[in-house]
Amino acid sequence: MSIVDQRELPGRLVERELRSLDDVCDAIRTLAVRGAPAIGIAGAMGLVSSLAAETSCARDDFLRRVDSHAETICGTRPTAVNLGWALDRVRRCAHAAGGHAGAILDAMHREATAILEEDRAMCRRIGEHGVSLLREDARVLTHCNTGALATGGIGTALAAIYVAAERGLRVAVFVDETRPLLQGSRLTAWELTQARIPATVLVDSAAASLMRAREVDLCIVGADRIATNGDVANKVGTYALAVAARHHNIPFYVAAPTSSFDPRAETGADIRVEQRSPDELRSFAGVPTAPAGVAVHNPAFDVTPAELITAIVSDRGVHRPPYDFRLRA
Amino acid sequence: MSIVDQRELPGRLVERELRSLDDVCDAIRTLAVRGAPAIGIAGAMGLVSSLAAETSCARDDFLRRVDSHAETICGTRPTAVNLGWALDRVRRCAHAAGGHAGAILDAMHREATAILEEDRAMCRRIGEHGVSLLREDARVLTHCNTGALATGGIGTALAAIYVAAERGLRVAVFVDETRPLLQGSRLTAWELTQARIPATVLVDSAAASLMRAREVDLCIVGADRIATNGDVANKVGTYALAVAARHHNIPFYVAAPTSSFDPRAETGADIRVEQRSPDELRSFAGVPTAPAGVAVHNPAFDVTPAELITAIVSDRGVHRPPYDFRLRA
Repeated sequence: MSIVDQRELPGRLVERELRSLDDVCDAIRTLAVRGAPAIGIAGAMGLVSSLAAETSCARDDFLRRVDSHAETICGTRPTAVNLGWALDRVRRCAHAAGGHAGAILDAMHREATAILEEDRAMCRRIGEHGVSLLREDARVLTHCNTGALATGGIGTALAAIYVAAERGLRVAVFVDETRPLLQGSRLTAWELTQARIPATVLVDSAAASLMRAREVDLCIVGADRIATNGDVANKVGTYALAVAARHHNIPFYVAAPTSSFDPRAETGADIRVEQRSPDELRSFAGVPTAPAGVAVHNPAFDVTPAELITAIVSDRGVHRPPYDFRLRA
Repeated sequence: MSIVDQRELPGRLVERELRSLDDVCDAIRTLAVRGAPAIGIAGAMGLVSSLAAETSCARDDFLRRVDSHAETICGTRPTAVNLGWALDRVRRCAHAAGGHAGAILDAMHREATAILEEDRAMCRRIGEHGVSLLREDARVLTHCNTGALATGGIGTALAAIYVAAERGLRVAVFVDETRPLLQGSRLTAWELTQARIPATVLVDSAAASLMRAREVDLCIVGADRIATNGDVANKVGTYALAVAARHHNIPFYVAAPTSSFDPRAETGADIRVEQRSPDELRSFAGVPTAPAGVAVHNPAFDVTPAELITAIVSDRGVHRPPYDFRLRA
């Protein structure tokens, strides 16, 4: 399988071929592939690729390798729900398949492809539901990357914008750069530029004053996890945007596939927020950006309470408050 | 005159000598010197340095050069009220001085030195008034750099923290990194670390969720310009913080010398906000951080309306709303 190495964007468009188990694990661990749905797809496809040279094994031996490779890949991002879920699907399919190693690998490949196709279809449906929130000349503010690079299809929050563009609706997008890893300026701005959709990059902290200047009609962001009451965990900075949007009476939308709804989290308080390395703030490209060893607060996500969210767009439709996602399945 | 080149911090402590008009303008424009009071002092001192080689001119010719250099220096940072104010003082002093060019330059040098000394004294008084807002174990959030690097003395917003530390009061400071130029993580965190005051750096967009987690007792920031109604222009991101502080019922304080009060600006709408180069967001340390040529919204400042400000601390005291700074002088 081949991937776009997201660490190189926007400087260079580098495609990397992932053949071995090491290639796959390395790509996921180092964030060459990122975005919850994209990680799941890369894990599933990567599992298949990593076994392509092993079809001369006996069936039992091959199945043991399937399990062992899946476990190794899963360990690269142990908290990524989609990764374990996608690998499990392909692994179960392998064990259920009849015949020799070659036939099993074919079945696994069909399952991984199905995961990709399902994700692609979910993105499309999110976009089709989401576009109903956009009017001609809408000025949309977004955060982080929720587009084609993060999914198998046209994205989640960005899907609504891509569908709008397909339909000839003019929209302009303000893109928060999204510190510390700059997924907005590096990835979202790159995607939109490729698609010839007008994009303007700004520092995250300039979004509020842009709203005050009445330059923003609505906000739309993605979600890493959604509790049953509609509280949303997403990239750090999402909550700050939601507070500013409320202060300025600007609609604040969240877009995510139903696979991001977590029936085990009743509210945002049940969602654990990962702290990432202080080094993400202490230097950039080898240049010190803070005193060596200074304390750093670097949460990957924040939680936006449901009461600040105007609507949540999923592949099933546009959900309005009061939210109740207990019956997700 | 010599300055600490703030672009090199925290990696290296570099002093630079400013001799020519170009040196002075370049240092201010490129933010080697920054912080409203420090810019005023550097402008005043720089005006003197830039004329040191011209004392053989006739009096009228010399005065014409004073005006022309002052105008050129003033154009480097249009939003910084202190720059125009300090240059005006030195320029007026030149015109009032008797005698030949050398005598005029001496008078200008005394005036520039007086501005520095007054600023130092104002910082001290701001700190002494500001410390009344801090209690033992206060957790203070600040933005940008408002310390010794930004002024001729111990700073403005940071002055309150330095005076607290002098008096043995324990405070802990959360420091917004302050994109795009990272004056918080590079300069404020460096100053606080040097002074052994506990500092924790965070991305600007994480401040709101930190407030929601009840980790912040108060915010204190500086000001580049204060309108007579109390509206404050300050580093971009200040307004976002003020909105978040209001949402969480957290006091939001501004600290500034009376030289930052602009009697000609009735409200924030009268303050022109400088747009800086898109390149500040398009790359960092030579590494692309956004697609080449992408549109960028990069205001240096934003305006926080007076109604979001709990109190303004100046060298004259702690001012509470309703603000009326028409009688600044």
